[in-house]
Amino acid sequence: MSSLKLGLIGAGKIVRDQHLPAIRQTPAFRLAATADPYASLDDVPAFTEMHAMLDAHPDIEAVSICTPTALRFETARAALSRGRHVLLEKPPGATLSEVEALIELASQQQVTLFAAWHSRYAPGVAQAKAWLANRRIDQVHIEWKEDVRVWHPGQAWIWQPGGMGVFDPGINALSIATAILPAPFFLQKAKLWMPENVQAPIAAKLSFVDAQGAAIAADFDFRQTGAQTWDIHVESDDHSLSLTQGGCKLAIDGEVILDEEEQEYRGLYDHFAELIGAGRSAVDIAPLRHVADAFLYGYRETTEAFIE
Amino acid sequence: MSSLKLGLIGAGKIVRDQHLPAIRQTPAFRLAATADPYASLDDVPAFTEMHAMLDAHPDIEAVSICTPTALRFETARAALSRGRHVLLEKPPGATLSEVEALIELASQQQVTLFAAWHSRYAPGVAQAKAWLANRRIDQVHIEWKEDVRVWHPGQAWIWQPGGMGVFDPGINALSIATAILPAPFFLQKAKLWMPENVQAPIAAKLSFVDAQGAAIAADFDFRQTGAQTWDIHVESDDHSLSLTQGGCKLAIDGEVILDEEEQEYRGLYDHFAELIGAGRSAVDIAPLRHVADAFLYGYRETTEAFIE
Repeated sequence: MSSLKLGLIGAGKIVRDQHLPAIRQTPAFRLAATADPYASLDDVPAFTEMHAMLDAHPDIEAVSICTPTALRFETARAALSRGRHVLLEKPPGATLSEVEALIELASQQQVTLFAAWHSRYAPGVAQAKAWLANRRIDQVHIEWKEDVRVWHPGQAWIWQPGGMGVFDPGINALSIATAILPAPFFLQKAKLWMPENVQAPIAAKLSFVDAQGAAIAADFDFRQTGAQTWDIHVESDDHSLSLTQGGCKLAIDGEVILDEEEQEYRGLYDHFAELIGAGRSAVDIAPLRHVADAFLYGYRETTEAFIE
Repeated sequence: MSSLKLGLIGAGKIVRDQHLPAIRQTPAFRLAATADPYASLDDVPAFTEMHAMLDAHPDIEAVSICTPTALRFETARAALSRGRHVLLEKPPGATLSEVEALIELASQQQVTLFAAWHSRYAPGVAQAKAWLANRRIDQVHIEWKEDVRVWHPGQAWIWQPGGMGVFDPGINALSIATAILPAPFFLQKAKLWMPENVQAPIAAKLSFVDAQGAAIAADFDFRQTGAQTWDIHVESDDHSLSLTQGGCKLAIDGEVILDEEEQEYRGLYDHFAELIGAGRSAVDIAPLRHVADAFLYGYRETTEAFIE
């Protein structure tokens, strides 16, 4: 397949840190332009909004949408309506209903829609999934604890409706868990700690169960200082699997079998190219649905104000 | 079709008030037994739980699940696994993920799963839907305001996680709106008023938009005293439609064209029989998804404590 011309909608921090280097390493894509009202990239034609970009570059066949979450739906709808393949940064929407509508539209337009859960491309994920396939799961512990002041400085949006608070990193853990565990699971109980001055939880404790009765516990916390924790531990058939450091390190029965540098966005763009080549879409709504379930069914406890 | 034997799981107030009279008027079903740890019905064989009921009455082919929401998933899963057709009272689950799993299971088991949104069987709904089909919608105002002390006395569960507060009646409005409006719609903004002493909203204001740009506003309030309001007003193509009194009364351009007594559960059981006869399921998750979207994306404002 020759290179497809790609436009980036949004040219903020995640684009400069992750999308840009990954696209430059992916032969399937060639970056043609950006659309962002406030930002641009060196040596890339810049527009302030998507329609102007597509008008000027009608040969752009695919776009990556990396805008703030609340803007993704209108942008994606417009891009799909103009017949472009669309990659959506995580989460794929501010609500579930809008993601369902995009799935329908992509199918009508016969273009690719890809909800990109970047954490699923961490180095150990594929091997963990393969090892767990067809095993009986006894229990799972997900621990995703990071210091919001270190990782999200000044990101006021994360505390607003749609920002999801600690579920912004937590949804990454859920995107891995839903990928590697062999059966779907269901929320039984959730507790959300809500700082009294913001709109999103700073910590959450979730209890799921799968159809075979395995207990899946998740602890998300934005108040972690010191060492940071992005770990999933699985007990299965008298063996244990630990996928730690956000999916970079994999150990079976305590023995490290993989320990690699993160290269998530590289794999993500490869997969986007494959999907376009195959004429398929891939929109797994499960991670966002689990977050919505926690917001719908969770017990909220007010906790001390968050002052950055 | 000869009568199908039906079991009722749960024998509480909604069963005595609505399900029982409707089943007795529906030739397609014959009530065989109930399963409820605390309640029973006169002259109907009573069991304390579903498995004992199905063991004693293996000829029960269908069950209606009218337990508290949090128990529906396990009960429905067990009934589907034993090859029974299942009707689920609204809402069909405490979370979206569990409803998705039930859809999958019903399909595997080749039995009927019916998520029964009773308000869709109000007398004016079908005619409203027919009138609105293919029209251009300009705007919609949903007003669903009732006195929680009158309609839900002593129902502490309604204020707990999963009880959904004002969305317990509000989801009925959403079940009608999603049925009669010709296009799907998406939440843009939501505000939820949370009494400081409970876990669920007492009022909510929602703003949706559909793909053609029609504005759909919903006001839900549990604090209404005096006259009660269960109305949907639609402006369309220079005409207006008002579906009021919970769907019992329909007016077009101010002229009342239908005003009938509520008989929702009668239509609901007829439809369940049709689905079983046709070997189909009908699980529209949209009303619950809109509620989850409002919990996920809504702005919460603390308001005065609710003391019944």
